[in-house]
Amino acid sequence: MSMPKTLKRVLMGPGPSDVDPRVLEALARPTIGHLDPEFLNILNEIRSLLKYTFQTKNEMTLAMSGTGSAGMETCVVNLVEPGDPMLVCINGVFGMRMADVAQRCGADVSTLEIDWGKVFEPDQIKLALQKKSAKVVGIVHAETSTGACQPIEEISRIVHEHGALLLVDTVTSLGGMNVDVDGWQIDACYSGSQKCLSCPPGLAPVTFNDAAVKVIENRKTKVQSWYLDLTMIRQYWGTERLYHHTAPINMNYALLEALKMVQEEGLEERWARHLANHQILRAGLSAIGINYVAQPGHELPMLNAVSVPRGADDAIVRKQLLNEFGIEIGGGLGVFKGKVWRIGLMGSASTRSNVMLFLAALEKCLIDQGIEFERGASIAAAAGKASQLVVS
Amino acid sequence: MSMPKTLKRVLMGPGPSDVDPRVLEALARPTIGHLDPEFLNILNEIRSLLKYTFQTKNEMTLAMSGTGSAGMETCVVNLVEPGDPMLVCINGVFGMRMADVAQRCGADVSTLEIDWGKVFEPDQIKLALQKKSAKVVGIVHAETSTGACQPIEEISRIVHEHGALLLVDTVTSLGGMNVDVDGWQIDACYSGSQKCLSCPPGLAPVTFNDAAVKVIENRKTKVQSWYLDLTMIRQYWGTERLYHHTAPINMNYALLEALKMVQEEGLEERWARHLANHQILRAGLSAIGINYVAQPGHELPMLNAVSVPRGADDAIVRKQLLNEFGIEIGGGLGVFKGKVWRIGLMGSASTRSNVMLFLAALEKCLIDQGIEFERGASIAAAAGKASQLVVS
Repeated sequence: MSMPKTLKRVLMGPGPSDVDPRVLEALARPTIGHLDPEFLNILNEIRSLLKYTFQTKNEMTLAMSGTGSAGMETCVVNLVEPGDPMLVCINGVFGMRMADVAQRCGADVSTLEIDWGKVFEPDQIKLALQKKSAKVVGIVHAETSTGACQPIEEISRIVHEHGALLLVDTVTSLGGMNVDVDGWQIDACYSGSQKCLSCPPGLAPVTFNDAAVKVIENRKTKVQSWYLDLTMIRQYWGTERLYHHTAPINMNYALLEALKMVQEEGLEERWARHLANHQILRAGLSAIGINYVAQPGHELPMLNAVSVPRGADDAIVRKQLLNEFGIEIGGGLGVFKGKVWRIGLMGSASTRSNVMLFLAALEKCLIDQGIEFERGASIAAAAGKASQLVVS
Repeated sequence: MSMPKTLKRVLMGPGPSDVDPRVLEALARPTIGHLDPEFLNILNEIRSLLKYTFQTKNEMTLAMSGTGSAGMETCVVNLVEPGDPMLVCINGVFGMRMADVAQRCGADVSTLEIDWGKVFEPDQIKLALQKKSAKVVGIVHAETSTGACQPIEEISRIVHEHGALLLVDTVTSLGGMNVDVDGWQIDACYSGSQKCLSCPPGLAPVTFNDAAVKVIENRKTKVQSWYLDLTMIRQYWGTERLYHHTAPINMNYALLEALKMVQEEGLEERWARHLANHQILRAGLSAIGINYVAQPGHELPMLNAVSVPRGADDAIVRKQLLNEFGIEIGGGLGVFKGKVWRIGLMGSASTRSNVMLFLAALEKCLIDQGIEFERGASIAAAAGKASQLVVS
């Protein structure tokens, strides 16, 4: 059997998010060569727009030829050599993954673990670094498994006071909220194309400041991954244009178009849109008694992780949303499996219509599960919140 | 500046090759989720068509989320553990790359090197294995840097007599000539989407037989790359459907469509087309004194590596082909830099029209360089060869 050509979902899970037709149109342009001068111009444009989006002047800013997890692995394997001490902060799946990646490349990994959904206090990082110094401290800005947003600025100060480099996962946050690479003095940072940038999955934007580049340049050992080795890849993205691997041509067309849409909207306008739609969704969910699992005050705008309400069957509701309304939301991972829904409002999918459609559909599914609440409560609350936002 | 939307090349380099509009149309379908049942069906269809194309019953047949080089790294890092002896056969860039990848994962690497363009004799492999046994022997079927086609069958017998696994690079050959994974008893094999499959770059088909899977299952150490770890990825492609990384959704749509086109044409018909167009091109090139660099009798049909004729400037000719005719061909790599042209006739780009257009354009460029030969000689010879092929 084949995919129905007309299949269209509303992607409100943890990514991929809905892709604008403009980006799909760019994706489908005729393939050209990876050393074609026209394609090399496209790489330059992508670098320039990634610098804008990451808010950085870093010259080593580029898109790796893999998904967000390849971006994570790129940062770790290039910065760390066997035996190097690395501290990884874990409060969800992606911190765990980073520790795993670091162990696989022979780092001397320490982990700092707190409950899922919580965010780290700067003092916790300070204590950990006082106990054992690190070459690199890895932390997740937007933990996609818990919906928690980690403040970075103060932690960055502490990490640098202790002589370490700060590596930050912004897979889910980039393009949907403030990610200020230079302002926060992030040394290395990776993201993914398929979240708030609303490009299909397959590319991983990364950026490295001078301190991080120096560490890479002064390595004593080869980077363990040939495919992700920035000492070679920089010669392709740089002026030398040396062939390394064949870049995913069409995916780069799409990323460029998606980044142009970010620039046209404007970063701050884009963050404001993500925040407003989150607030409307939240008002609606709260009206029918559905609560966020992230630490209060630290809920991510683009990834709403909420408890599955008592009496509702996780799998049945998600299946009904998909089959009856074409809406995809995410289930819980790890300790949250079966207990948490992850509702994405990312990039092109962060619209008021999607919020209202989702709330209406969810109410229907919950009523079908025999859960009782005042009908239309979520919709009314969301509409009320929306009108406030318009007024303010 | 932006890419002109109308830019269309004739891709006759070492890949990417021209992508059929049907495949581009599939690429641009709306993105859906990586755990959507519809997408999981697509993965099943891809597996089934990859098995057809690789001519294998191997259940562990799938598309890795990276380009061909990621496929190479996948095979090496999954089969080899630190200290494992591996023999790599080098007669061009991609053998060198495989040795580099193996060294980076801590293998005890031996290399067997012969001149670029030559192919290995079975006895050379036998002697090398008698001198030092290996867990894995890596060899390139279609060396993209030299245009040489390595016979595999007899070498496979020898490798297995010596108790090693055979790893074969079929990045450039798959879909354009016979690649008989089961018949040749290849244990592990990787390819790329952008050569004779005529899909954009970004995915790497791989296949592993039971012996190779057993080696992976019995590893004592974790695979050094998290992103390429088949012990986890198999649980996503398998019945468990466990989330690993977000698959490049749209690239998989395109690969499926490209594989359907392979099946519709038929493997043998596709190989015959590649061979016929190669023979026509060769007749034309030979008529104007342009010679192949691969060992006679071992020229690849889809990648014609020829000496830059005396008196011609490599870079100027390639630039003129691109700017005046939109034709991309490849330059030489490594020791062949400036001395060799690599003319691809891969997948959708392997057409009689492309051959004739290229010969006409090349004649024009060479005449502009002041090279003298009978005008129209290449065209006449090619046309003559074509008519013979039609008759036979």
